Amino acid sequence: MELPSKHIAEAVEQFASLPGIGRKTALRLALHLLKQNPNEVERFANSFITMRTKVLFCKSCHNISDGEICSICANPKRNTQLICVVEDMRDVIAIENTRQFFGIYHVLGGIISPMDGVGPADLNIDTLVEKVRTTDVKEIVLALSTTMEGDTTNFYLFKRLKDFNITLSTIARGVAIGDDLEYTDELTLGKSILNRIPYENSFLKS
Amino acid sequence: MELPSKHIAEAVEQFASLPGIGRKTALRLALHLLKQNPNEVERFANSFITMRTKVLFCKSCHNISDGEICSICANPKRNTQLICVVEDMRDVIAIENTRQFFGIYHVLGGIISPMDGVGPADLNIDTLVEKVRTTDVKEIVLALSTTMEGDTTNFYLFKRLKDFNITLSTIARGVAIGDDLEYTDELTLGKSILNRIPYENSFLKS
Repeated sequence: MELPSKHIAEAVEQFASLPGIGRKTALRLALHLLKQNPNEVERFANSFITMRTKVLFCKSCHNISDGEICSICANPKRNTQLICVVEDMRDVIAIENTRQFFGIYHVLGGIISPMDGVGPADLNIDTLVEKVRTTDVKEIVLALSTTMEGDTTNFYLFKRLKDFNITLSTIARGVAIGDDLEYTDELTLGKSILNRIPYENSFLKS
Repeated sequence: MELPSKHIAEAVEQFASLPGIGRKTALRLALHLLKQNPNEVERFANSFITMRTKVLFCKSCHNISDGEICSICANPKRNTQLICVVEDMRDVIAIENTRQFFGIYHVLGGIISPMDGVGPADLNIDTLVEKVRTTDVKEIVLALSTTMEGDTTNFYLFKRLKDFNITLSTIARGVAIGDDLEYTDELTLGKSILNRIPYENSFLKS
């Protein structure tokens, strides 16, 4: 694809550097911007520079934040004895949207993945152990993905935390609400039978 | 979806303003940028501002260009007696990629669409008529889409150009190369039979 303008070629290349955006989509996006008001394009572009330079990470939970401490850690109504460990901020948003969790979070910033060169030292694990050591944490909920890397990270955290007097739990895995049993994979269906719960506990709080 | 930082919320909103990008994808793109080097994010953002302020339109064919005259119009090897009329620059790129057209282009900048409030006066039609009047044009190839709007625009151009001593043609419509006849729509298949061509003309020049 030969473009008639090197400025457009550069914009297309930049869009195409984003994950999941191919060159044809990138061209469509660039031509869309070309039709916009110059002020709007400037606002569009500057929003990314502002985000990259102004966004901080919460000193306590490593979640993304506008200040030194994020709004969740700073909220006096949250239960600081209950910590949910997640991989990144998207998981925080997903769990917050359920309105079923009232503890605080700890964002690891990734999971242990030797294939990608990510070891325990690259993650926010020491600060979690330090938090357990120095504050009155009662329970840690592990909410990492059920991949080999997630399981490895869970096991590493278990080893680091097992000598403290805390409860270590993981989120329940089972058949998704609304899903047909016949289309559920065997591993998930098996887990959901093994980890069955009393019927009276099965209602969602709302 | 409540975001923990207003800077991220703004970046997500800006990404989501692009066509075909939803809020979940926008968040994924924003988080991708957040992981990049600040210099790279600045280069990313500035490419759009540069494109919007620096890109010009060719004075002759209205295609996008870095200078006053685009590289196609400025190329002495192109046949200026043969003009291909297209809707926008993406069509120019598509036809250029075929390497089968050696004339010049005329970019209308849209098609006549009363529903969207686009009339003939909003398009680059007068400059096309002027070019036919003042230069030695022999043939105009209409390469607009086969929609109601495309047909309307073709007919309008036909009315404006019919009194000049030029050939007016449209690109061939037919069964795409590699397509099965049984899955081709009846209109296309019918056209491809009506407009059949001598076998010896059916080889692509390459």
